Amino acid sequence: MEKEPIFDVAQLAHVEIYSPKPDETLWFFKELLGMEETGRRGQSVYLRGYEDFYHHTLKVTEAKEAGLGHVAWRTSSKQALERRVNAVKETGLGKGWFDDEDGHGAAYQFTTPDGHKMELLWEVEYYQAPEEKKTPLLNRPQKRPTRGVPVRRLDHVNLMASEMKPNVDFMMNQLGFNLREHVRLNNGTDAAAWLSVSPLVHEIAMMGDPLGGKARMHHICYWYGYPQHLSDISDIFTENGIKFDAGPGKHGISQANFLYVFEPGGNRVELFGDAGYLIFDPAWKPVTWKEEDLEKGIIWYGSPLPQEFFMYGTPVIDHKKAANIG
Amino acid sequence: MEKEPIFDVAQLAHVEIYSPKPDETLWFFKELLGMEETGRRGQSVYLRGYEDFYHHTLKVTEAKEAGLGHVAWRTSSKQALERRVNAVKETGLGKGWFDDEDGHGAAYQFTTPDGHKMELLWEVEYYQAPEEKKTPLLNRPQKRPTRGVPVRRLDHVNLMASEMKPNVDFMMNQLGFNLREHVRLNNGTDAAAWLSVSPLVHEIAMMGDPLGGKARMHHICYWYGYPQHLSDISDIFTENGIKFDAGPGKHGISQANFLYVFEPGGNRVELFGDAGYLIFDPAWKPVTWKEEDLEKGIIWYGSPLPQEFFMYGTPVIDHKKAANIG
Amino acid sequence: MEKEPIFDVAQLAHVEIYSPKPDETLWFFKELLGMEETGRRGQSVYLRGYEDFYHHTLKVTEAKEAGLGHVAWRTSSKQALERRVNAVKETGLGKGWFDDEDGHGAAYQFTTPDGHKMELLWEVEYYQAPEEKKTPLLNRPQKRPTRGVPVRRLDHVNLMASEMKPNVDFMMNQLGFNLREHVRLNNGTDAAAWLSVSPLVHEIAMMGDPLGGKARMHHICYWYGYPQHLSDISDIFTENGIKFDAGPGKHGISQANFLYVFEPGGNRVELFGDAGYLIFDPAWKPVTWKEEDLEKGIIWYGSPLPQEFFMYGTPVIDHKKAANIG
Amino acid sequence: MEKEPIFDVAQLAHVEIYSPKPDETLWFFKELLGMEETGRRGQSVYLRGYEDFYHHTLKVTEAKEAGLGHVAWRTSSKQALERRVNAVKETGLGKGWFDDEDGHGAAYQFTTPDGHKMELLWEVEYYQAPEEKKTPLLNRPQKRPTRGVPVRRLDHVNLMASEMKPNVDFMMNQLGFNLREHVRLNNGTDAAAWLSVSPLVHEIAMMGDPLGGKARMHHICYWYGYPQHLSDISDIFTENGIKFDAGPGKHGISQANFLYVFEPGGNRVELFGDAGYLIFDPAWKPVTWKEEDLEKGIIWYGSPLPQEFFMYGTPVIDHKKAANIG
Repeated sequence: MEKEPIFDVAQLAHVEIYSPKPDETLWFFKELLGMEETGRRGQSVYLRGYEDFYHHTLKVTEAKEAGLGHVAWRTSSKQALERRVNAVKETGLGKGWFDDEDGHGAAYQFTTPDGHKMELLWEVEYYQAPEEKKTPLLNRPQKRPTRGVPVRRLDHVNLMASEMKPNVDFMMNQLGFNLREHVRLNNGTDAAAWLSVSPLVHEIAMMGDPLGGKARMHHICYWYGYPQHLSDISDIFTENGIKFDAGPGKHGISQANFLYVFEPGGNRVELFGDAGYLIFDPAWKPVTWKEEDLEKGIIWYGSPLPQEFFMYGTPVIDHKKAANIG
Repeated sequence: MEKEPIFDVAQLAHVEIYSPKPDETLWFFKELLGMEETGRRGQSVYLRGYEDFYHHTLKVTEAKEAGLGHVAWRTSSKQALERRVNAVKETGLGKGWFDDEDGHGAAYQFTTPDGHKMELLWEVEYYQAPEEKKTPLLNRPQKRPTRGVPVRRLDHVNLMASEMKPNVDFMMNQLGFNLREHVRLNNGTDAAAWLSVSPLVHEIAMMGDPLGGKARMHHICYWYGYPQHLSDISDIFTENGIKFDAGPGKHGISQANFLYVFEPGGNRVELFGDAGYLIFDPAWKPVTWKEEDLEKGIIWYGSPLPQEFFMYGTPVIDHKKAANIG
Repeated sequence: MEKEPIFDVAQLAHVEIYSPKPDETLWFFKELLGMEETGRRGQSVYLRGYEDFYHHTLKVTEAKEAGLGHVAWRTSSKQALERRVNAVKETGLGKGWFDDEDGHGAAYQFTTPDGHKMELLWEVEYYQAPEEKKTPLLNRPQKRPTRGVPVRRLDHVNLMASEMKPNVDFMMNQLGFNLREHVRLNNGTDAAAWLSVSPLVHEIAMMGDPLGGKARMHHICYWYGYPQHLSDISDIFTENGIKFDAGPGKHGISQANFLYVFEPGGNRVELFGDAGYLIFDPAWKPVTWKEEDLEKGIIWYGSPLPQEFFMYGTPVIDHKKAANIG
Repeated sequence: MEKEPIFDVAQLAHVEIYSPKPDETLWFFKELLGMEETGRRGQSVYLRGYEDFYHHTLKVTEAKEAGLGHVAWRTSSKQALERRVNAVKETGLGKGWFDDEDGHGAAYQFTTPDGHKMELLWEVEYYQAPEEKKTPLLNRPQKRPTRGVPVRRLDHVNLMASEMKPNVDFMMNQLGFNLREHVRLNNGTDAAAWLSVSPLVHEIAMMGDPLGGKARMHHICYWYGYPQHLSDISDIFTENGIKFDAGPGKHGISQANFLYVFEPGGNRVELFGDAGYLIFDPAWKPVTWKEEDLEKGIIWYGSPLPQEFFMYGTPVIDHKKAANIG
C-alpha cells in the first residue's frame, strides 16, 4: 500500500516580524491595510485582518533590523501536535515548549535547518468582537473596517534559504507539507518551492537566497480575494509614499494576482488580489517549472519582476558585503 | 483525548444530471459556460471546466425528466476509500462496486438515507489536452476557451432532503464531512446545512424539501472566482433566453456571490462569482443562523430570494400534487 | 438646414439636499462615502467627492424634512449663461440673480414648471488641496481618502414631477438637454425620461410622481466607476445599519450598475458602479422603452425593483394622504 | 468677451489600419476581441465592436506594411461639417471630398501637417442587427458576442508626429480639440499631448516620434470599461501567442487602465479597462506633466514602460536606419 498523506498541520496561524520603525510599520498595517490591533506586550503589538478568527495573525516586534520573528503553525488536533513535535524532535531542531504568549496556548519552538524560527501549537484564543464591532454576518468575526483598503486574512509566508533541499524536505517530512509547484534548474536543483497543507497552493514558499543569507524572510502575504482591491490599495500606497517592489501583476506559478511593496520597517509585504486556483486532488503531482518554461511561470502576463525581487530579503544583506559571501 | 477529524473524503469529483433536452443542455454548458466535451457514451456526454483536472466533472444523461444522476466523491487515498466504503456498508445503504465508467476506476455506489445516488472512488483519469489546447500555464490543464464566459471548475452540489437530520448525519458520520454553517429553526430542527471536507464552506449543502420530495437536487455550482464574470454571463444569459432564478447577489451564509439560473433541461445551476471565505480552523464551530438572524444570512445585501428558490428542485414536483403530499 | 444642437449647459455643478438629521447625514457622506467637507455656513455644510474639481458638489442643509434644495448647472461659457438665462426668463419661471454663495459666482435662480429649484452659473471656485492632501496624480484634485469607500464624483440627479411633459420640454427647450432614453406608456405619455448635455446618458432623469407630489426628488447619484465598489459599500452599509432600497443590480435603461439606499436624513442616494455606456452620436435618436419591453429596461438582470422605488421621494408623501391627492 | 469653445467635431467615427497579414489581423480582432465583420470591399474588411452604433469603426486594409490608413471624425451637424472643412481648407492641407465609401456619406479628406490622413464627415449609416443578433437591451445595437473577450467600442487613436506643435495646433485650431493633458519638457516643448472634443480625456493623443518618422501611428484603442476584462484578454492573448508591449497597468496621465499588444499585422492595439476620469469642466486647464513629475504620469502604479513603447510605431522604422534620420 502507498503511504497515506499526513494531515497534522492544519494552517498558518500567525507570523511575527521585526521592525526598526514600529510606529510606521503599525501605521502601514492599521491605517492603509485596515488591520486591527488586539493587544500590546513589551515591544510587540498584535494585529489581525477583519476575517482572521484568532487573537492575532501578525505580531510586530520592535528590533534593530527588519526580519522574521517566527512562523506559527496550528495543528489539526492535540494528538497531531504531539506527533509533529515528536517528528521535529527527531531532527534535533527542536527548542522546547513555550507557554507565555498572548493569543494561544503552549507552543513547541524549533527552527528550520536554515534557522527560521517556527512554532507548532494547538490551543488558540478566538477573537471576540466588542459590541460595536459585531456584525450580522455571522461567519465574519467582526465588522469590515472603514479604514484604508482592509485585508481579509493572512495568506502565506515566503522564506529565503541558503540551501533549498534540506529546508523543503524538512517541511514535507517533519510537518507533512505537500510540494505543489517548484522551479527546477537545469542543474537539477530547485530554485524555489511552493508547499501547502490545504488546497491553497502555498502557506509557505521557499526560495534560494542568492546572497547566501541564512533564515531570511522574502515576504508575508495578506489576502483580499478581489482584484479591484489591488488597484485600490495601489492608489493609496502611491499617494502615501509606500515603495513598490512589483505588481500588480499575475504570476503563472500559483496563478497569484500579486502586489509587492515594502512596509516602512523594510519587510516586503504581498497583497493577494484574487482566488488563485485551489488544489483538491489528493494525489497532486507537483507542477515543475523548468528554466525554459520559467518566464511565463514568473510572469503570466504583465511586466518582468525587477532583479531586486530575487535578492532582497530581511534582514537586509548589503550587496557588496554579499558579493564576498555568496 | 478528543476524537480526531476524518480526512478520508478529499473532494467532489463529478456530478451526473439528467436532462429531457440534452442538446439544449449541452448548448448551455458548452456554448454559454464554455465547458469542454471529453466523451460520449450511450445517452451520456462528459464535460469539464477548463481548470477541472480530471476526465469530467459533469455527466449529462438524457432522461425523461430533469434531476440528479449521482454525486461522486474522491477519497484521499486507496486506504481511505476502503475505510469509507466500510463505514457506508454498516448503514445498509451500500449498493456495491461498479467498474465500467469512463474517467475513473472502480466506484462504490450507495445512496443517502433520502435516496440520492452517490459514489466513492479513488482512481481517476486525468484530462490530457491535445496539442492545440496545451497552455504554458502549467498548473492549468488546458487553454482557457474563447467561447461564452467559461467556468473554471466544479464547486459544489446542493441537495434537497425530505428529512434533514439522517442525511446530514450520514454525510458527517459515514463520510467525514464537517458541518460549517446551518439554519436552525425555532423548533430545534435544521432547515439547511452546509458541509465540507476542505476549506471550502461546502462541497455539499442540504436543504429540507418543503414539498416532501425524496432525493431531489436543488442545484449544482460551477466556479468563476471573479465577480465580474457573473455580470458577463448574466448579460449573455439574458440575451440568450436563459431563465433566471435569483441573483447576481450575495448570501450571508457562506458569503457566496451567487447567480442561479435554469439550464434548458430544467436543472438549477449556480455560478459562483467570488472566493467566498475559506475555513482553515481545524476546530471550526458551525455557524448557526437562527430564525431571527436568517434574513441577512439568506441575503447579505441585494434583493430577497423568490419563493420558488425554496420550492423548486429536480425532478420537478407539481405544486398542487405536492400540496397533498407535503 | 436642420437646427443645430445647443451646447450651452455644460454640466451638473452641484445639488443641495435638505436633511432633518444633518449630523447623521454628514456621517453617511463623510465616513461611509468618504466625502470631504469643504466649508460650513449657516445651517449648511459643503461636501465634495475626491475627484470633484470644484468647491463642492453637495450642500447639506438642515431642514424640517428631507428633500431637494436646488440643482445647479454650469454653462459652457459666460455668453452661454446669458443665452440660457434669457431663455428661462421667457418662460416666466426665472427668479433672479443670487450672488452670495460659497464656491461660485452669481447664479441665476429659477424653477422647473413643477417647482424644482434650479440655478445656472458660470464662475466657479476650484478646490485647492492643502499640502497634506496634494497628490502626484495631477489630474486628481486631492488624494484618495482612506475613509469608507470613497465616491469619485457627482453623477446625476433624478427628480419626480407631477406631470412629465412640461418639465421635460423645459429641460430640452430652455436648457438644451437631449432626450437619451424614455419610457413611453401605451397611452402615449412618458413615464420617465433620461436627459443629458454630455455623453453621459443623463445628468438628469425625470419620473412621473404617482402620488401626485410636486417638485420631489427621487435621488442623487455619486459615481464609483468600478463594480467592486458597490459590493464594498454594500458590505459597509449593511454592517452600519443603512437601509437599502434596491440593488446592487443592473438597469437596462442607461445600462446603470446601480445601488439605491436611504441616507439617514431620508433622501434616496444612488451609487453608480460602472461606466455605463456613453453617447457620442450627435444625432442620437432617443431609445424608447414601450410597456412591452420595459421589464428588461428596468432590470436587465437581477431582481425586480420594489414598489417603493416608484413611490418614494423626498419630501416624503404619506401614502394614505396621497391616496386622496393622487 | 472670451472666445467660446467650438463644438463642431463630435466624435471619432472610425480608423483605417493597414496590415500585411490581413487574415491574422482579422482573426485577432474577430476571434480574440470579439468584433463583428460588417462588410468587405476590395482589399478591405469592415469591423465594429458590439456597442459601436455605426456600420464600422475599424477598416482593415491589406497593404505591404502596417500603419495608419486614415482617421475619420464625425461632426456635430451638417453646418459644423462645412465650418470645419472651411477651416481646414484655409491651411492648404485639404485634399477634397470623397463620396464612395461604405458606411457613410461624403467625407472631406485632408492630412495633418505631419501627413496623417484624416476625414471629416456628417452622414453615417447605422448598423442594423439581423434578427438573431437583436437584443432586448435597446441601447445596445446588437447582442454581446460569445467569442473571445469582446470589446465594446472604439475609444481613441494615438499618432506619432515628427514635430508636435504644428500638429497639436492644427487639431485645436482647425478642428476644435481641447488640450486636456500634456508632457512639457524642460526645453519648453511638448513631448506628448492628449486632446478631446468630449468629456473623454482624449479621442486623439499625439506623441513626438523619436525616430523622426512622419505620420506614424502609435496605437488604436478599443474600450472595455471593466478592469477584469484586461485580465481576461491577457489570459487569452498569452495562450494564443499575442505579443505584449506593456500592461495591464495604470497610467497617471488620463488615468488609463491600459494594456498594449501588437496585432499580428504589427500595429499596436490598446485595450482600455476602466472608465478613467471624465472632464465636464468647460474651462478645463490642461494638466501639465513636467519632467520631474513625469514618472508617476507615465506609470501611476505598476512597472515602467519598455523603451520600445516610445520608439515603435507603424509603419515600422528600422532603428539603425533611424539612427541616421533622427
